[in-house]
Amino acid sequence: MTSNRTDTKPATGKRKETILSGMQPTGTGALHVGNLEGALRNWVELQEEYWMYCCIVDLHALTADWQDTKQMKDRVFQVAVDYLAGGLDPDKCAIFVQSEVPQHAELHLIFSMLITVPTLTRLPTYREKKNDLDSYGFLGYPVLQAADICLYNAHKVPVGKDQEKHVWLAKDLAERFNTTYRKVFNLPEALFREVPLILGSDGRKMSKSYDNHIPIEFTEKQTEKRIKSFFTDPNKKFQGDPGNPDKCPIFALHRVYTPGAAQEIAPPCRTGELGCVDCKMRLAGNLNDALRPVRDRRTELIQDPGFVWDVLRTGGERARERAANTMEKVRDAMKINYRKSKKK
Amino acid sequence: MTSNRTDTKPATGKRKETILSGMQPTGTGALHVGNLEGALRNWVELQEEYWMYCCIVDLHALTADWQDTKQMKDRVFQVAVDYLAGGLDPDKCAIFVQSEVPQHAELHLIFSMLITVPTLTRLPTYREKKNDLDSYGFLGYPVLQAADICLYNAHKVPVGKDQEKHVWLAKDLAERFNTTYRKVFNLPEALFREVPLILGSDGRKMSKSYDNHIPIEFTEKQTEKRIKSFFTDPNKKFQGDPGNPDKCPIFALHRVYTPGAAQEIAPPCRTGELGCVDCKMRLAGNLNDALRPVRDRRTELIQDPGFVWDVLRTGGERARERAANTMEKVRDAMKINYRKSKKK
Repeated sequence: MTSNRTDTKPATGKRKETILSGMQPTGTGALHVGNLEGALRNWVELQEEYWMYCCIVDLHALTADWQDTKQMKDRVFQVAVDYLAGGLDPDKCAIFVQSEVPQHAELHLIFSMLITVPTLTRLPTYREKKNDLDSYGFLGYPVLQAADICLYNAHKVPVGKDQEKHVWLAKDLAERFNTTYRKVFNLPEALFREVPLILGSDGRKMSKSYDNHIPIEFTEKQTEKRIKSFFTDPNKKFQGDPGNPDKCPIFALHRVYTPGAAQEIAPPCRTGELGCVDCKMRLAGNLNDALRPVRDRRTELIQDPGFVWDVLRTGGERARERAANTMEKVRDAMKINYRKSKKK
Repeated sequence: MTSNRTDTKPATGKRKETILSGMQPTGTGALHVGNLEGALRNWVELQEEYWMYCCIVDLHALTADWQDTKQMKDRVFQVAVDYLAGGLDPDKCAIFVQSEVPQHAELHLIFSMLITVPTLTRLPTYREKKNDLDSYGFLGYPVLQAADICLYNAHKVPVGKDQEKHVWLAKDLAERFNTTYRKVFNLPEALFREVPLILGSDGRKMSKSYDNHIPIEFTEKQTEKRIKSFFTDPNKKFQGDPGNPDKCPIFALHRVYTPGAAQEIAPPCRTGELGCVDCKMRLAGNLNDALRPVRDRRTELIQDPGFVWDVLRTGGERARERAANTMEKVRDAMKINYRKSKKK
């Protein structure tokens, strides 16, 4: 069902609150099964119930990739393709590029007056990376994130636990603004969801930056090969050795892709009856089956870049409309809306 | 002579380079004789030779005044009035408000990726004030200033010696951008001029923040009263005592407002023949004479706020046009101009 949603009229009666979500166009741009199962599938559900703004945060990607922007356009395109292939519906959800909405930078600049340097230098993400990444922009990353969220006056932000502090900081900035000037912003809350644990080939969290991931754009053959390279329980060296599925990234993926994995896969692994090679092949088959519709849609979209860019253009228009509306309220509240107050 | 200048066609053959200048709408907004004689008179000369962008930097004022923005609109208006009363010609010079040109925030955000936190924390202005003012925005003040300058691709920035480091930083950011991506920016240079030393009533540099100033908006009576309150050479207690004009803020003002002050005022001060009261009254007369045309124009402008806001509107349009042009080049150079490169 496609709803011709506009920003003033909800498609369904239940859509009451706004959600902001986003991903960075880093690496090759394309998403992996961790992004798909850990976030995107959830967003696809959320778009039925919420006003949804899905941003491709290219300005955030600049904090790390400022020297290497040649691939940014293709990365943005790849994220958009995956958003759509994964099921985001441009009629229900504004899909757009951050840098095409100038109000992100405007609200970021205003928020930057409302937060101290020590508040930012104390944040764990800054402390962890400051030896590699010490730009003024990187220090302000959470301020820009707060602006992203508040610009759409989001109520909820679907994030993982590692981003909880940043949503808290956005809430704090929204509150500080409301108290100093006038209530403009909803106080955004993190929206935690039950997400399956998706581990990468080395047993760590699946992530592009660890290069332990299964990109959605992989062919079935590439997927099979990558799955074969996965780490399993190191105590299970040969077929017949008993394994511990709880320590195995392959079993974590079975939980997502193999119905009844707890009954079908875990017991024969524990007894040693199921060897790792067989186990991986079953996973590859199931995972490829599950991803087939997404990949088919991906292939179609890749062949129609005009459509994808049009989605981003339309999404950008919708986002700018909402953002301009928020900034109008921001300026009114701060009494720096010179044109408007003049006419009063 | 009024030239119907446009940004593409110089009014006169000699106008080749661009200047960016700006003042903060702080205090009451209105400027003082230090601003007038130390900067504005110079800008009025420069507008004949350069493409001139005169900005009222309200976003910079927010770094200190973020909690108190109620007066910002009036302050912006007062600065615009003084710009015009002092002789800036809206046909020769774009007079505009910083926050009405969203590209300042956009370029600020991009520049913020190109500069490290320690570079900013080492700057003397931050070190001096960080105990009172420790916002992320205040730390980034020089980054925003660099964006102000580079957004108009300015060649020259008329500043005092105390701002030299900030222009150097703008040049450094321009250079870093050009080297990383592609040459977009001119490398801006500080334009130092011979300016008269204007001291305030306490003998320090005349400044609103010291409350030792003579606002242009003062009446002639208020001016006289303020001049009477001025500190003079403390060794000259009574008429007849010899004085040292080189230590006297009144004599510094005579240099500006009394023709032949070196011959007419200094010798009788040194001998003790000229008493401070007489000396101050002569200055008040001369200063009021010199300011009369500025103040008359000021009175007219105050009565025609529609005209003043129109000047800012037109100036803002001109500034946005130039700023949009620069940002287009910035995005092209960084290859994040998704729309444009798509068509190539």
